Amino acid sequence: MKNFEYYTPTKVVFGKGTENEVGKLILQETKDACVLVHYGSGSVKRTGLLDRICKSLDDAGIKYVTLGGVVPNPRLSKVYEGIELCKKEGINFILAVGGGSVIDSSKAIGYGVANEGDVWDFYDYKRVPEACLPIATVLTIAAAGSEMSDSSVITKEEGWIKRGVSADCSRCRFAIMNPELTMTLPDYQTSSGEVDIIMHTLERYLGQGKNMNITDEISEGLIRTVIKNAKILVKDPSNYDARAEIMWAGSLSHNGLTGCGVESMDWASHQLEHELGGMFDVAHGAGLAAVWPTWARYVVDANPARFAQLADKVFGISDKGSDMANALAGIDAMEQVFRDINMPVTLTELGLKDLTDEQIDELAEKCSFGQTRTIGGVKALNKADMINIYTKAR
Amino acid sequence: MKNFEYYTPTKVVFGKGTENEVGKLILQETKDACVLVHYGSGSVKRTGLLDRICKSLDDAGIKYVTLGGVVPNPRLSKVYEGIELCKKEGINFILAVGGGSVIDSSKAIGYGVANEGDVWDFYDYKRVPEACLPIATVLTIAAAGSEMSDSSVITKEEGWIKRGVSADCSRCRFAIMNPELTMTLPDYQTSSGEVDIIMHTLERYLGQGKNMNITDEISEGLIRTVIKNAKILVKDPSNYDARAEIMWAGSLSHNGLTGCGVESMDWASHQLEHELGGMFDVAHGAGLAAVWPTWARYVVDANPARFAQLADKVFGISDKGSDMANALAGIDAMEQVFRDINMPVTLTELGLKDLTDEQIDELAEKCSFGQTRTIGGVKALNKADMINIYTKAR
Repeated sequence: MKNFEYYTPTKVVFGKGTENEVGKLILQETKDACVLVHYGSGSVKRTGLLDRICKSLDDAGIKYVTLGGVVPNPRLSKVYEGIELCKKEGINFILAVGGGSVIDSSKAIGYGVANEGDVWDFYDYKRVPEACLPIATVLTIAAAGSEMSDSSVITKEEGWIKRGVSADCSRCRFAIMNPELTMTLPDYQTSSGEVDIIMHTLERYLGQGKNMNITDEISEGLIRTVIKNAKILVKDPSNYDARAEIMWAGSLSHNGLTGCGVESMDWASHQLEHELGGMFDVAHGAGLAAVWPTWARYVVDANPARFAQLADKVFGISDKGSDMANALAGIDAMEQVFRDINMPVTLTELGLKDLTDEQIDELAEKCSFGQTRTIGGVKALNKADMINIYTKAR
Repeated sequence: MKNFEYYTPTKVVFGKGTENEVGKLILQETKDACVLVHYGSGSVKRTGLLDRICKSLDDAGIKYVTLGGVVPNPRLSKVYEGIELCKKEGINFILAVGGGSVIDSSKAIGYGVANEGDVWDFYDYKRVPEACLPIATVLTIAAAGSEMSDSSVITKEEGWIKRGVSADCSRCRFAIMNPELTMTLPDYQTSSGEVDIIMHTLERYLGQGKNMNITDEISEGLIRTVIKNAKILVKDPSNYDARAEIMWAGSLSHNGLTGCGVESMDWASHQLEHELGGMFDVAHGAGLAAVWPTWARYVVDANPARFAQLADKVFGISDKGSDMANALAGIDAMEQVFRDINMPVTLTELGLKDLTDEQIDELAEKCSFGQTRTIGGVKALNKADMINIYTKAR
């Protein structure tokens, strides 16, 4: 087992009605909180959630201002707007009401307020953030895992560049997770989140060389759980327990637990998707589903035993005669899961049927940082590999 | 899934050589630390670990005093000694170098310094601790899980009463875990720790009524991991990876993860053992192994389906014709695991072959708090049940 650090200070408050505790929880963190309530497209207004949260803050005597308008693949311009608002209003605490996009936007605003200079520097890997305003969340989407992770992904409109930064100081102080709040999501968003959750685990799992025990057991159990309950939600979207299982799996998938002690990870699917999200604004999980099967078949020969273990432990496939045959059958099975939950498994199905060779070249050029980096732990992929994968995934 | 809270702020620094980071980690927590280095029987001196830690503190310019002498089933008198020393020396940080006993003693000292009045009040359930000195640990035994848990168990010599208290404020700021440090343990202590780890998971698992997914998957995977690697260590005590798997499982077993969303827990085995530990000073895990099979057979009829799930998922036993038959075969299999790792499965094997009926009555009287409480989630056990179990376990 490789040396590792594990740090998850976020207090999770999970279950029905927990959003009403938000005022009390903020007071436990800071007595003189002046809060930015940050949210997305307005669905939290329509459902009445924002009103309930504001009431909880009012009841606790907490001052706050609101800022909505965060979109999927959250934008740098909104981050700048939030930073300015926070400085003007003397904000010292950010409450993200929404999913990963809103939390990521909140973290970016938190960096921008707590550090000098242009916040994009952190996402452009020019500087490392030293501090962040305290962040907390009322989570409404099970997907990104940002509620317990140290990461934030922002898209800069100029050039449509999507980049992530990770720092412990941005980890949420608390995360309120009521699975009922995810029930108003469109089915497509629910499925997209489920793929993201599976991928956060798979990308830590598949880069591993040697057999692990506890981390493998947790990862395999987590993926089985998400697949089982995702299929339940296709037929019964209001199933509370299935929503709860997936919501909690989403946090555990990306809080570091599934990476403890692993030798290497492989974030190639995420990185390939980031360029799709940046340029075409696709739903993140759907983008992952459209890329992963092609990526997996492209790299499987570099570690067939590991893919075969996935096939065995998650799908019960171990009778195909060789590691490679089992591995390929496991990839087919995962692809079928995506189909079963109505996710795209090609770029055409993702809605990019007219993707040109020039656009693919641009995606790969960006993803390779102008041919200055390779990506992936199973197999290192350069720009030519990226072009191959995007092309095969079409 | 039942509502739950999950809070594990302890920063884990896991792997070879990590104990040398202790000075740096304390400085990250507090710039003007004045540290009590608390330890046990002197084995940390013999192995040179204490010297390495003191060097790390010296190198970081950190002031400290040392206090050894913590014994298994840590004593209240040592806690009082530590509180007095801390007050005299102006200690503001406690570093526990050892296993659960040393960490628990440190937490108790931390309560005693940070709160007015007699610290035993908290263990006697008369008051709730409001604060605790910051605690951290360099862990040398994989067992109690105290390095990430909120609990502390102390034995009061007057009447030999062993009691636990739980509070978030006592959770370790960081836990340094180098599996190599556990290699100097006697085999009996290694096995005893493994039983404790299994029990921390089982006692959360077996009280559950309905089938869970993610928490069950994690619990079952954790128990499989400990059993597999415990058997490896019987033959190969210096196997680093096996030690690492068990050490990390020990923390995950008791940091709350295996209890997330469960309907009810069952701590009866721990409570029955606490009285044995208090009166006869037996090794904690060995005491659990000596009690659990009898307890399990005594309560299995209250929830055979749950025990059958354990039999199936951990031992692959599902062919006995009924839930009850599978359940009983699963209990037999767990008992055999204890035997395989040279643990006692009766009180006689534990070394209490001359246990009298009067002593059993005293154990049950204490365990039932003078017949004012029942224990257990699978089946509520009163004093008469406790007498039955202790007697059958003889």
